[in-house]
Amino acid sequence: MAAVVGSGIMAATLSPDDVGLQLLENSVATAFALGALILVFGPVSGAHFNPVVSAADWFLGRRDGTGLSAAQLGGYAVAQTTGAIAGSVLANLMFDLAAVDFSGKDRSAGHLWLGEVVATAGLILLIFALARSGRSAVAPAAVGAYIGAAYWFTSSTSFANPAVTIGRAFTDTFAGIAPGSVPGFIVAQLVGLVVGAGLLLVLYPSSDRSPVR
Amino acid sequence: MAAVVGSGIMAATLSPDDVGLQLLENSVATAFALGALILVFGPVSGAHFNPVVSAADWFLGRRDGTGLSAAQLGGYAVAQTTGAIAGSVLANLMFDLAAVDFSGKDRSAGHLWLGEVVATAGLILLIFALARSGRSAVAPAAVGAYIGAAYWFTSSTSFANPAVTIGRAFTDTFAGIAPGSVPGFIVAQLVGLVVGAGLLLVLYPSSDRSPVR
Amino acid sequence: MAAVVGSGIMAATLSPDDVGLQLLENSVATAFALGALILVFGPVSGAHFNPVVSAADWFLGRRDGTGLSAAQLGGYAVAQTTGAIAGSVLANLMFDLAAVDFSGKDRSAGHLWLGEVVATAGLILLIFALARSGRSAVAPAAVGAYIGAAYWFTSSTSFANPAVTIGRAFTDTFAGIAPGSVPGFIVAQLVGLVVGAGLLLVLYPSSDRSPVR
Amino acid sequence: MAAVVGSGIMAATLSPDDVGLQLLENSVATAFALGALILVFGPVSGAHFNPVVSAADWFLGRRDGTGLSAAQLGGYAVAQTTGAIAGSVLANLMFDLAAVDFSGKDRSAGHLWLGEVVATAGLILLIFALARSGRSAVAPAAVGAYIGAAYWFTSSTSFANPAVTIGRAFTDTFAGIAPGSVPGFIVAQLVGLVVGAGLLLVLYPSSDRSPVR
Repeated sequence: MAAVVGSGIMAATLSPDDVGLQLLENSVATAFALGALILVFGPVSGAHFNPVVSAADWFLGRRDGTGLSAAQLGGYAVAQTTGAIAGSVLANLMFDLAAVDFSGKDRSAGHLWLGEVVATAGLILLIFALARSGRSAVAPAAVGAYIGAAYWFTSSTSFANPAVTIGRAFTDTFAGIAPGSVPGFIVAQLVGLVVGAGLLLVLYPSSDRSPVR
Repeated sequence: MAAVVGSGIMAATLSPDDVGLQLLENSVATAFALGALILVFGPVSGAHFNPVVSAADWFLGRRDGTGLSAAQLGGYAVAQTTGAIAGSVLANLMFDLAAVDFSGKDRSAGHLWLGEVVATAGLILLIFALARSGRSAVAPAAVGAYIGAAYWFTSSTSFANPAVTIGRAFTDTFAGIAPGSVPGFIVAQLVGLVVGAGLLLVLYPSSDRSPVR
Repeated sequence: MAAVVGSGIMAATLSPDDVGLQLLENSVATAFALGALILVFGPVSGAHFNPVVSAADWFLGRRDGTGLSAAQLGGYAVAQTTGAIAGSVLANLMFDLAAVDFSGKDRSAGHLWLGEVVATAGLILLIFALARSGRSAVAPAAVGAYIGAAYWFTSSTSFANPAVTIGRAFTDTFAGIAPGSVPGFIVAQLVGLVVGAGLLLVLYPSSDRSPVR
Repeated sequence: MAAVVGSGIMAATLSPDDVGLQLLENSVATAFALGALILVFGPVSGAHFNPVVSAADWFLGRRDGTGLSAAQLGGYAVAQTTGAIAGSVLANLMFDLAAVDFSGKDRSAGHLWLGEVVATAGLILLIFALARSGRSAVAPAAVGAYIGAAYWFTSSTSFANPAVTIGRAFTDTFAGIAPGSVPGFIVAQLVGLVVGAGLLLVLYPSSDRSPVR
């Protein structure tokens, strides 16, 4: 979260004249940081930083007991959201801003929600396709690259994560989102979760391989 | 396809003053997205998103029965083209544009066709060189990197894919191509297929290893 | 060091109008160069270019004798600092500047020091998480990516290395730091070392696998 | 060669206002293309596109017969230079320029030559360090990343290859070099070869592993 918000602040500060360049800087930094973070936390917790990924893990693994339990899912979601808010605060502090300043950036529109559905569905499909084909070792690079690309090809710049969406409300900077726009994004992400899990079950019906943990 | 068109729209919207920066944004997003997509669809269908790659697979594997059959090739080409058009429409919708708006961007010139020959030949050579040397595991990163580079070093910005060429006609945005320019590009891509397959047979005569599937 | 300073000079010279673009150029070049350097020096010396990494290696491996000895740590720190200064001088010479020209760029502020704490803690955590989970083979790419990202998401542009901090004082260019700002940065990096090692011991308590050497 | 020159032309055409952005575009495209090319030609010829790399292979492997012979070295150098000129011509044609137009860009200065020494020595060290430690499988990504970085951290933008230097004389575009500046660059590259091979023998004295072929 600190990487997303921090690089967004830095980009907006240093490249004030070109929003595209800001997003390029923000997306490359996010892709690289995400890859490193998944490497660090993968063996510890499965590197679930995302409630919809954890929910998919619970849903897809519930029959054969390889996924998270419902209780674990709840705990993960609380931890993910807390961490996201803390990361946002940390980024604000690192850049000498008020610890919390709610964003004024409205992000409410049908085409943005469609972007979130696409971004989230693709993320779920990627992560669990790798898990179900025994290739989770490439997940750090692959997820980083996917998010780096999805910043660009979705109109919503690919939040694709309810915890991150909430966290981004706490910073009135480049990566922020107005609190009032958060629920719409989260609903779209949940729709994306359903679409992504559906596509996965069509493309990778067997759960022979355990999920990404 | 949605990644190519969507990131092109985003880039053109956010960086209106520098076409080069737009292409940089578009090419990095495409490279990253393509790598992720090949990872997702590789074990499912061989991650053939490209009729000329499928045609090369049929041609190079027809003697020892390791490639696609002619009937499969036809089915693949229909699916690839349908998917490309759908991706273009999805990108238009994500960015709040009309679902279909044919491109007005003329791309007809001898030097552009030469660019497509080079781009396509290089792509065929790369994919099947990896397959014939048992290194298809690196294909997602390698093909992503190659296309990201070929956006720059070919004058045509490397469409290198007949299905994508048709799909791009359905969007009047950065990545579009006027319908009237499509046939010339496809002919050039077919020439590139022949050149690429010829180079492959010189450099990698043995088909001991099975193609990229 | 020459890569950090040299690419900074090149970026500032060629992109004079956008500091963000300069940092993008500088960060991508640093990430790529660092990956290559770790590949070259990993089997020779463990690719420790950073006194805080060497200090963590000594601290974390002192019980079971797998880390550097205190004497080796001292030798490493001297070599690292000498090399960093030499690299800075080499970069100055490559760009036709005076061999040594102390930087006038003040970098003293609480939020910058917080940035250094975060950057250094994350680096220590990444390197030793990989080591303790037997994945040091990906360290060249992972450390390169992390530093490339941390240039952006920390307010201090992530020096994260006392030797590099000293070396950067010897060049009055984009990447420079005024000699008077050096001690504050080094103190922050040492705090980051403690934080990072603490996090590591929580997340990866077992040292079954040997450190990154 | 076509990738270096072609992406340079594209960058200079599309981003006329910022030379730094041009070099960023050129360097990323070169890094990605070089990685793909090494993958394609590695199993065929060792992916030697560079006379100084071939010379180092001959020199370092001459005692135990694992390197190129002197006659092979000569053949390689002729082929490399011919290919580089052909690539330059191909790029000119792809961008609708005269097939051959000698460059007018003077690149003669002591600090540029120092840049070439550093760039070439680093390249030799990287390639043969990987070979001598049995890690040539990562050479495509590593060499691509190194050159992408060296474009930035050396004042000469890292030609580091006599064949490429000659080829670049044949295009009066972004990547060109005046014919009169070619000899100075080649001498510097030969000095870099000696420095790089010397460093290698210090750091990796044993040739137990066979060179990069």
